[in-house]
Amino acid sequence: MHQIVGCQPPIKLNEEEERRKKKKKKQKVTDMLPVVVVHGGADHIPKERSEKSTLGVCSAARAGYTILQGGGSSMDAVVEAVTFLENNPSFNAGCGSVLNIKGEVEMDAIVMDGKTLGSGAVSAVRNIANPIQLARLVMDKTSHACLTAEGANRFARSMSVPEVPLESLITEYSRMRWTKNLAADANPVECQIGKMGTVGAVAVDVEGNVACATSTGGILNKMEGRVGDTPCIGSGGYADNQVGAVSTTGHGEAIMKVTLARLILFHVEQGQSVEAASDLGLAFMKSRVHGLGGVVTVDPQGRWAARFSSLQMSWAAAQKDTLHYGLYTGEHSTQSIEKPV
Amino acid sequence: MHQIVGCQPPIKLNEEEERRKKKKKKQKVTDMLPVVVVHGGADHIPKERSEKSTLGVCSAARAGYTILQGGGSSMDAVVEAVTFLENNPSFNAGCGSVLNIKGEVEMDAIVMDGKTLGSGAVSAVRNIANPIQLARLVMDKTSHACLTAEGANRFARSMSVPEVPLESLITEYSRMRWTKNLAADANPVECQIGKMGTVGAVAVDVEGNVACATSTGGILNKMEGRVGDTPCIGSGGYADNQVGAVSTTGHGEAIMKVTLARLILFHVEQGQSVEAASDLGLAFMKSRVHGLGGVVTVDPQGRWAARFSSLQMSWAAAQKDTLHYGLYTGEHSTQSIEKPV
Repeated sequence: MHQIVGCQPPIKLNEEEERRKKKKKKQKVTDMLPVVVVHGGADHIPKERSEKSTLGVCSAARAGYTILQGGGSSMDAVVEAVTFLENNPSFNAGCGSVLNIKGEVEMDAIVMDGKTLGSGAVSAVRNIANPIQLARLVMDKTSHACLTAEGANRFARSMSVPEVPLESLITEYSRMRWTKNLAADANPVECQIGKMGTVGAVAVDVEGNVACATSTGGILNKMEGRVGDTPCIGSGGYADNQVGAVSTTGHGEAIMKVTLARLILFHVEQGQSVEAASDLGLAFMKSRVHGLGGVVTVDPQGRWAARFSSLQMSWAAAQKDTLHYGLYTGEHSTQSIEKPV
Repeated sequence: MHQIVGCQPPIKLNEEEERRKKKKKKQKVTDMLPVVVVHGGADHIPKERSEKSTLGVCSAARAGYTILQGGGSSMDAVVEAVTFLENNPSFNAGCGSVLNIKGEVEMDAIVMDGKTLGSGAVSAVRNIANPIQLARLVMDKTSHACLTAEGANRFARSMSVPEVPLESLITEYSRMRWTKNLAADANPVECQIGKMGTVGAVAVDVEGNVACATSTGGILNKMEGRVGDTPCIGSGGYADNQVGAVSTTGHGEAIMKVTLARLILFHVEQGQSVEAASDLGLAFMKSRVHGLGGVVTVDPQGRWAARFSSLQMSWAAAQKDTLHYGLYTGEHSTQSIEKPV
């Protein structure tokens, strides 16, 4: 560009304006942090269970947000939120997990830290109340990213993580569904689809670090040792400080086919908003492999989305002292974080 | 655009030219198929073992190519090639697998079909001569994508896949390395890095279907139940008829952090060549998480690449009756597929 002699160099004005814009943007960004978004599974939730499901995700989002408000990390927040959901028998994770073909509970969980890209996972683990905490220990205390089955339980023992009786993880509801599924006229595939209450959370802390956590009992009537998308990095979740974080739910085998979490973050990298990227990922999964599911997504600036192609997904988000929650497409309620739902 | 009256409409000429170009391109594409590319691991291969390694990958590529020439599918070809490598004690997969901390063999394997995006995997499986064949059975015979540990072995029994004694999978070399690693002055991390002979293959058949297969004994001295990148879709491998196929090798935990196979195919989707996309993926893994590794990559048109950031990777490719192979960066030998190496 040529500069006209005698005129005030335009570059200086631009610099000033840029500085003002940047300051404004930074303030705006800081206002958006911290944030936590949780889901209780993409599902067809029976009416009598929908209130419990909404209450559960709201409590979990509050628990995660309390951690973030106290200056805790996004990793601490997502593990806290998912621990809440695992301890809540309304969800298919921890206590309340669905039963495999033998009537047993085998669980999968993953955490991922967007700062280091480090992750920890457990698959087909038994007798553990909070697989998400064990997954975090895999990340923090080993040089590995995933431990499976008996190896995961051995590791739990070495870390003094208590093992709990199988019965303590089984609810009346999950046993009833399993028994029903054994009936001669049952349709196991139909029972599996639409009952996929995997839980998960994503968060951004005040330092702009993102993290994700996902935990599940898998799908009803699954074979022994079946591992789904949840502990599989890029499918059940992904977190990268340079892009964002995603936790997924839905039909695991479909999610794996499209590596849904990573796919959504590739769209974010290409300039899509978290909402548009989530919708693009879910739409691709639906059109390409006929799979339904849902996701919670954040970017490092604190923009977030809770999107699903299934009939319902219980979700809640906490940001700027406001609790957001919903269950059906288009449903979006808000209230002060202080009030009970 | 305005068209000048009386002039020959330029669009027709273009159409004709386009048709000629397309025809030429189609002929060229057909010439490129079928193709199979195999790797024997990104590794520092001791000199006394490098010849065996090269011979091994060449035999495996020939075996896969024979299937393709007979009209077999890319899935048949990659499973055949990887079976060859599993049966060859020079590689860290099947017989020849490294030992875990307890001196046992636990293996991971995955296959993926680019037509359906279906995949099958086994993790931490024991006493199986050819985990890659078991992974394929998971894909073909179950509604799941991954079976782990004892669950995978139970499935093997139900499919009449014979279980073999642990000793039949252990070579003198792998036991020697394990024993050495137990010595008081051993550096387990150093022993792990640079000894990562995971094997894998990608192929395109005459119909343009792509597939990948990857199999490994994991890393030396690993914890019981450690699952690496290999059985993790998008990390150990990925295949999509609309983009291409990748099989990876290297430090599993680093590969998982960047979901290397899927990352490379995203670059291909963005218009990069298979070679450039492979290099971009490996360079990102090196710069972001300090991980080394290698990949074999194909696109549906039969363009292929064997690239690595490690010191060596034994690889071989078969296309148009020519065998290509190499071990060090820049090394690329060719000969007729008929001749022994």
